[in-house]
Amino acid sequence: MPTPQPWFPDTHPCWLPAARGRHLAAARVEVDGGGPAGATVLDEVASLRAELGLGEPAADAPRWLFTTAGAPDGLRPGGFAVHHDGADRVVRAPDGAGLLHGFYRALVVPDVLDGTVEDPAVDLRMLDSWDNMTADGVMGSVERGYAGDSVLFRDGRVVEDLTRVRGFLRLMASVGLNAWALNNVNVHDAERGLVDEHLPDVARVADLARSFGVRVWLSVDFSSPISLGGLDVADPLDERVAAFWRETADRLYRAVPDLGGFLVKADSEGRPGPHAYGRDHADGANVLARALAPHGGTVLWRCFVYDHRQDWRDRSTDRARAAHDHFVPLDGRFDDNVVLQVKNGPMDFQVREPVSPLLGALRETTTAVEFQVTQEYTGQQQHVCYLAPQWSEVLRFDFGEGTSEPRTVADCARGGVVAVSNVGDSWCWTGHPLAQANLFAFGRLAWDPRLDPDALLGEWSRATFGDDEELLAGVHDVVAGSWRTYEDLTAPLGVGWMVSPHHHYGPDVEGYEYTAWGTYHFADRDGVGVDRTVATGTGYAGQYPPAHAARYEDLATCPEELLLFFHHVGYGHRLSTGETLVQRIYDTHFAGVEDVRRRAARWEEVADRVDERTAQEVRTRLAEQVRSAQEWCDRITTYFHRASGAPDAHGRRIF
Amino acid sequence: MPTPQPWFPDTHPCWLPAARGRHLAAARVEVDGGGPAGATVLDEVASLRAELGLGEPAADAPRWLFTTAGAPDGLRPGGFAVHHDGADRVVRAPDGAGLLHGFYRALVVPDVLDGTVEDPAVDLRMLDSWDNMTADGVMGSVERGYAGDSVLFRDGRVVEDLTRVRGFLRLMASVGLNAWALNNVNVHDAERGLVDEHLPDVARVADLARSFGVRVWLSVDFSSPISLGGLDVADPLDERVAAFWRETADRLYRAVPDLGGFLVKADSEGRPGPHAYGRDHADGANVLARALAPHGGTVLWRCFVYDHRQDWRDRSTDRARAAHDHFVPLDGRFDDNVVLQVKNGPMDFQVREPVSPLLGALRETTTAVEFQVTQEYTGQQQHVCYLAPQWSEVLRFDFGEGTSEPRTVADCARGGVVAVSNVGDSWCWTGHPLAQANLFAFGRLAWDPRLDPDALLGEWSRATFGDDEELLAGVHDVVAGSWRTYEDLTAPLGVGWMVSPHHHYGPDVEGYEYTAWGTYHFADRDGVGVDRTVATGTGYAGQYPPAHAARYEDLATCPEELLLFFHHVGYGHRLSTGETLVQRIYDTHFAGVEDVRRRAARWEEVADRVDERTAQEVRTRLAEQVRSAQEWCDRITTYFHRASGAPDAHGRRIF
Repeated sequence: MPTPQPWFPDTHPCWLPAARGRHLAAARVEVDGGGPAGATVLDEVASLRAELGLGEPAADAPRWLFTTAGAPDGLRPGGFAVHHDGADRVVRAPDGAGLLHGFYRALVVPDVLDGTVEDPAVDLRMLDSWDNMTADGVMGSVERGYAGDSVLFRDGRVVEDLTRVRGFLRLMASVGLNAWALNNVNVHDAERGLVDEHLPDVARVADLARSFGVRVWLSVDFSSPISLGGLDVADPLDERVAAFWRETADRLYRAVPDLGGFLVKADSEGRPGPHAYGRDHADGANVLARALAPHGGTVLWRCFVYDHRQDWRDRSTDRARAAHDHFVPLDGRFDDNVVLQVKNGPMDFQVREPVSPLLGALRETTTAVEFQVTQEYTGQQQHVCYLAPQWSEVLRFDFGEGTSEPRTVADCARGGVVAVSNVGDSWCWTGHPLAQANLFAFGRLAWDPRLDPDALLGEWSRATFGDDEELLAGVHDVVAGSWRTYEDLTAPLGVGWMVSPHHHYGPDVEGYEYTAWGTYHFADRDGVGVDRTVATGTGYAGQYPPAHAARYEDLATCPEELLLFFHHVGYGHRLSTGETLVQRIYDTHFAGVEDVRRRAARWEEVADRVDERTAQEVRTRLAEQVRSAQEWCDRITTYFHRASGAPDAHGRRIF
Repeated sequence: MPTPQPWFPDTHPCWLPAARGRHLAAARVEVDGGGPAGATVLDEVASLRAELGLGEPAADAPRWLFTTAGAPDGLRPGGFAVHHDGADRVVRAPDGAGLLHGFYRALVVPDVLDGTVEDPAVDLRMLDSWDNMTADGVMGSVERGYAGDSVLFRDGRVVEDLTRVRGFLRLMASVGLNAWALNNVNVHDAERGLVDEHLPDVARVADLARSFGVRVWLSVDFSSPISLGGLDVADPLDERVAAFWRETADRLYRAVPDLGGFLVKADSEGRPGPHAYGRDHADGANVLARALAPHGGTVLWRCFVYDHRQDWRDRSTDRARAAHDHFVPLDGRFDDNVVLQVKNGPMDFQVREPVSPLLGALRETTTAVEFQVTQEYTGQQQHVCYLAPQWSEVLRFDFGEGTSEPRTVADCARGGVVAVSNVGDSWCWTGHPLAQANLFAFGRLAWDPRLDPDALLGEWSRATFGDDEELLAGVHDVVAGSWRTYEDLTAPLGVGWMVSPHHHYGPDVEGYEYTAWGTYHFADRDGVGVDRTVATGTGYAGQYPPAHAARYEDLATCPEELLLFFHHVGYGHRLSTGETLVQRIYDTHFAGVEDVRRRAARWEEVADRVDERTAQEVRTRLAEQVRSAQEWCDRITTYFHRASGAPDAHGRRIF
């Protein structure tokens, strides 16, 4: 049993401030069963008491019993039920993870109701860390990380002191997350060694993760049979390759008996994969799956596959089609322990995309949905951008609309709900203190996709900032709606990709227009947008079931927030609200700047109600957000004014 | 006396193949005087003989006498005269450098005529190496270098083996260059030590350079009094700072008595300078000049000064004005041993710019002109781009036009003719074998700015490839006119900066349009170009003397190759040849591609007449040039078609 760590005094407590747990610290807490995760309940109580300066509870203090005995039938792993018995509370769960989830729930929401039954909607609730073992000059140690360096790796090794890792696992467990991919899906030389020389370190991390009800996963390099195994091929149908993966899996599971499995990015953006050998993704995934199957492991095979060396002159290829085109023909070919991990949209974590049609298209294959909590394209933790509304929209999107069979993304993604982490070793874990809300809300939505994003914002902010209602109202006003604000400023009507190449922060309207990435908006003097209709365009709209396909196909019925994703539209086109397309672009940008200024001003009204550091860190970032919003506004309005020649109806300044 | 190196057998001999020197190797060569540079004549002859397998010449062989006795009166340092005496030849010069120049001249042009008197037009003929002591991941060890790594530095030190350095110095001396700035004008931490811990190495290089008639210079960091001197300021008017520079100069000249002096980039693109202390460029340059003056040293102070953090929304600031605005008010304030080094154009080595008005504006200050032999903006030694016609145009540009006083740039640049080197440790010195022509022609033009670029191309190619007339005709066709081709493809009518940001290779029409660099073309749906007139624009045109100013000011008289540099012009504007502006843009691009294809095909007609490696290296690069030209054509024509809506009059394919 490791000594309980202090309550991480040098870092921000996020939504778990010790003061929030006074009722637990003061109670007589007993744990019955649950193994290492159950035992963590007691560690956490001890830490709370230490932090709060409380001694052992009085003999007549209320009692909290956490027990694996008598859990309601049918509770899924990790679920729990709460029963009130006068002032006493009983948390029952089928396993230690459930006990721990019940404990943290009682910390976040102290007045957890009698009869509460919390059952996770899906078994795999996962964070993918894009952490590298060695930092490079461009990306640092976390690819697309905006919260400092990796908490797990440093100087080519797993860190010796796992204090920060433990803090991260607490955060995960506290919102019900139960799986963690330790390393970047882009596996470099150093990380290949995680299945080999660094395996004892992986086991050490897995031991700690187990005590938080979290299983660890490894991103693996498909060419490992060559780089590690000394073979001359990585052909998935080569028996020597299969043997390499079996031996690798056997070795891994001896060290980490509950390893989740492998996360794989293959034949994507230059990563090695089965295509080099004339094999397909099913061949590739299955060779790994068969190595893992005897151990109960799973392959998460990413579907982020497209031609990243497209010729911009080629109008017949549409990157949006790629995942569906690649994987639907393979439906039914994957082994049972393969899960296809599909990004929420068909492109790449843009602030606005339609839901990936692949999520609803696979009937014979287990699917997981992948979100991005790290704000690569959504302000990089410089902007407040609360993303839960986006995720909620995706999870609620119903492929069965117009039929008798509701099939939401949450229904389809039985294989898991996954996201790229936004955590690093910054003092507040997420770089921007208010970006903690995204981490919190992602875990809660993975647990229950029906939850309301605004309610989650309230739950997070109350746990984080306490019961100061004026402060909470202020935080709400700063955070709520910020996703739409970012969309207004950066991707009007679904156009996307008007962002600075490579680093993806700040505007560059034509930055991706003539590149090999398949990311075009085709703006000219007359209009803008991509014709993805079946009738005259790339046919992407036809990848959806009929009701959706028909709605997207028709300019008149296409949702306006996706208008330019599906159609090339003239600047003079009248929108539902009566103004022209170009006027809407002007309006959303000017409004977006005003909105950001309002948020910054609103923060000043409540900043003295939080600690000085949080007040200042948020203030600094809001100032940058105002600057950045103005830049977005000025560049986008100038660009479309130069292109269209249309004056702003309200005579505002365009450069 | 160092042992003569072999004739650099592993590298391309450039325009000095040993076979070219058979007449010298077979002669009885005698040297009378001239010190180390004179002695190098004998080393070179020995090397020639070794390479050609020749022994000592027969007693009755023709005699070549190189002597400092009896040189014609008035010959400048480095100059020489050739006298025929039957089969014997006498080269007379005032110094060893002149003897060496005469020797190399006889190698390049074996039939040097009786009575030839070669006198350099200017005393300082200089190459600036932008070499760093340590390579970084982005730039490598040569900033804007496209020919491999530094020949001089490796792993933070001057190389131990100076063989390649000697080869470089030979190339310099062979075209009459006599000054070499060893290190990048952007001085990093490592290079600061050149005036300090690495000074013995500098002395070693200077010793070698002296034997080639070349003086070395050092780029210094204006903040060295802080970083090296332990002071808390670098204020040029602070006596402690002056003392630091005096002590530094004293130390340097003890080690290198003929050091040229300091090359300084100050208050430019983030480099430290006098502005931080409220001082001006004259204060900054003079403190250095006064430290150097007792030793006969000079300060080359670069005038590449502008606001690199400009707001693109600010239409009142014009980067083209900056150098003139900064330095003209300081005219007369500089000490005699300060030379202002002015780039050929007002922007930054674009393929087409007007001549910098500053070059003609300084009446009380010594001026040098700076060119760029390395092809940063002109194809990066992937494209054949023979730049001598550009340099010749600049050197012949007459600020005195319309007056009774001719004042060409060559007249004005009494302080020197300087260029950024295109040399690295590539097998052929310049990455692209045909880029050797630029190095050759630059040296020759610095020596004599009246020389004809096409004649220089012939001189270079004959020396390099021998007397195979078919081959020479082919090389001519591949190389001649290639500057204009690059201009046609990348900078129609002087517009400039439509290049990929940072690395500056390949098209990105809007890549610099919304940046902080002051590099805009203001293209919109109606037209393109920068209004730099006095009447309605930035007033830049008014920085020229009246005749030029009037010509640039008027759309009707402005040279068409500079039309968009000086005017914002509608796409429908009719040019002198009758077509519209946008049609001209289309035409030059389609023609540019055809021209490059023609060059590539022409090379194939003669490639079997050169060695296999040269044939293949040129072939590979021409293939890339064709690809790149097509990309330029397609992107530029597409961009302007999208902007203007104008169809191509010839119905060619625009995307």
